[in-house]
Amino acid sequence: MIPKFKRLPKHIGIIPDGNRRWAVNQGLSKESGYNRGIDPGFALYELCLELGIPEVTFYGFTVDNTKRPAIQKRAFQKACVDAVNILANRDASLLVIGNHESPQFPEELLPYTTRKTFGGDRIKINFLVNYGWKWDLSHAMTNKAKETCLLHEEIASKDISRIDLIIRWGGRRRLSGFLPVQSIYADFYVVEDLWPDFQAKHFLDALSWYQNQDITLGG
Amino acid sequence: MIPKFKRLPKHIGIIPDGNRRWAVNQGLSKESGYNRGIDPGFALYELCLELGIPEVTFYGFTVDNTKRPAIQKRAFQKACVDAVNILANRDASLLVIGNHESPQFPEELLPYTTRKTFGGDRIKINFLVNYGWKWDLSHAMTNKAKETCLLHEEIASKDISRIDLIIRWGGRRRLSGFLPVQSIYADFYVVEDLWPDFQAKHFLDALSWYQNQDITLGG
Repeated sequence: MIPKFKRLPKHIGIIPDGNRRWAVNQGLSKESGYNRGIDPGFALYELCLELGIPEVTFYGFTVDNTKRPAIQKRAFQKACVDAVNILANRDASLLVIGNHESPQFPEELLPYTTRKTFGGDRIKINFLVNYGWKWDLSHAMTNKAKETCLLHEEIASKDISRIDLIIRWGGRRRLSGFLPVQSIYADFYVVEDLWPDFQAKHFLDALSWYQNQDITLGG
Repeated sequence: MIPKFKRLPKHIGIIPDGNRRWAVNQGLSKESGYNRGIDPGFALYELCLELGIPEVTFYGFTVDNTKRPAIQKRAFQKACVDAVNILANRDASLLVIGNHESPQFPEELLPYTTRKTFGGDRIKINFLVNYGWKWDLSHAMTNKAKETCLLHEEIASKDISRIDLIIRWGGRRRLSGFLPVQSIYADFYVVEDLWPDFQAKHFLDALSWYQNQDITLGG
């Protein structure tokens, strides 16, 4: 069923966009789309386990996203909490990264702001929750090692490794603040379909494309 | 000749990739490709003037690129110097941004590390020369405003504004360290053709695509 790949990414970033557009297309209210993003996330998680992908980062929601109407905000906050609760019954080493000193951060997720392992430690899952690129990078400025250029050691998301491949659903070709430091050399693949319409084929097509990219890191 | 666009980007980032691959395809040595990247840059500059695009940033070379063989390094350094010398006879307000305290930075370009205006001030042209994303961001860490989150005010490239559209030639779908802060919400368009094979159509197709993108900035 799953093809053999000659080279797989070690770390994949997932931008699961299009939940609201999907809901509107179905004649539903915008906020009802977020809940439909959970099952696709676990379908993708299962594929990653099967392929042996060591690390996956999901874009939950950002500081900028919290400017949306309150009913939408509550819906995407709840979807993140529900996803973590389901994951707690699976195998994963989970880290939730975001500004957890803000009231926009769901308090149910506070225990996961240091990495917690559930079941077998088969895969690292990082979840960006109330994440802000400014929050992430400016964290470096308040830390000690100002004399060094080892910025990556000091940013708030320092426990998240370099990303090889970013897959964005929903057709938009932008990073929208997704981990700017880790994404420096990431290959960027866009799926036109909306995230609630996730199919395994989207993901496998992205991996097929990725295996043929020439990785140079600027050299 | 040039179509009417309903919405144009205010600031375009250009990643002119594929010079070496182009040279190899022509049976030439890799380094001879860089010189062929200058004319396309001026063709694009003329289109931007005609359309009234206010700001364009070109990716010259990066700190990572300087790890390449010396003959290639000298060739891309020279191409950057030649491009600036030609621009000095046109209309532009030029800023060269990069680590100019390094010996990899061509000294001929030192006068342009503060913005200089040539002819009429019709367009801002920024040129990244010996640019490094780490150098850029870590600059923020050595500055004063550590208590604020106004990181953008403090990075080395603070005089370069937010980018609306990034166009990369040469088929690769990655930013390769191109201005991570300014590129947060940039739409990313990839041209399969190599940069020395630049055609006006590539650029106009990117603008046609861009005018139909929904700009939300996370809201």
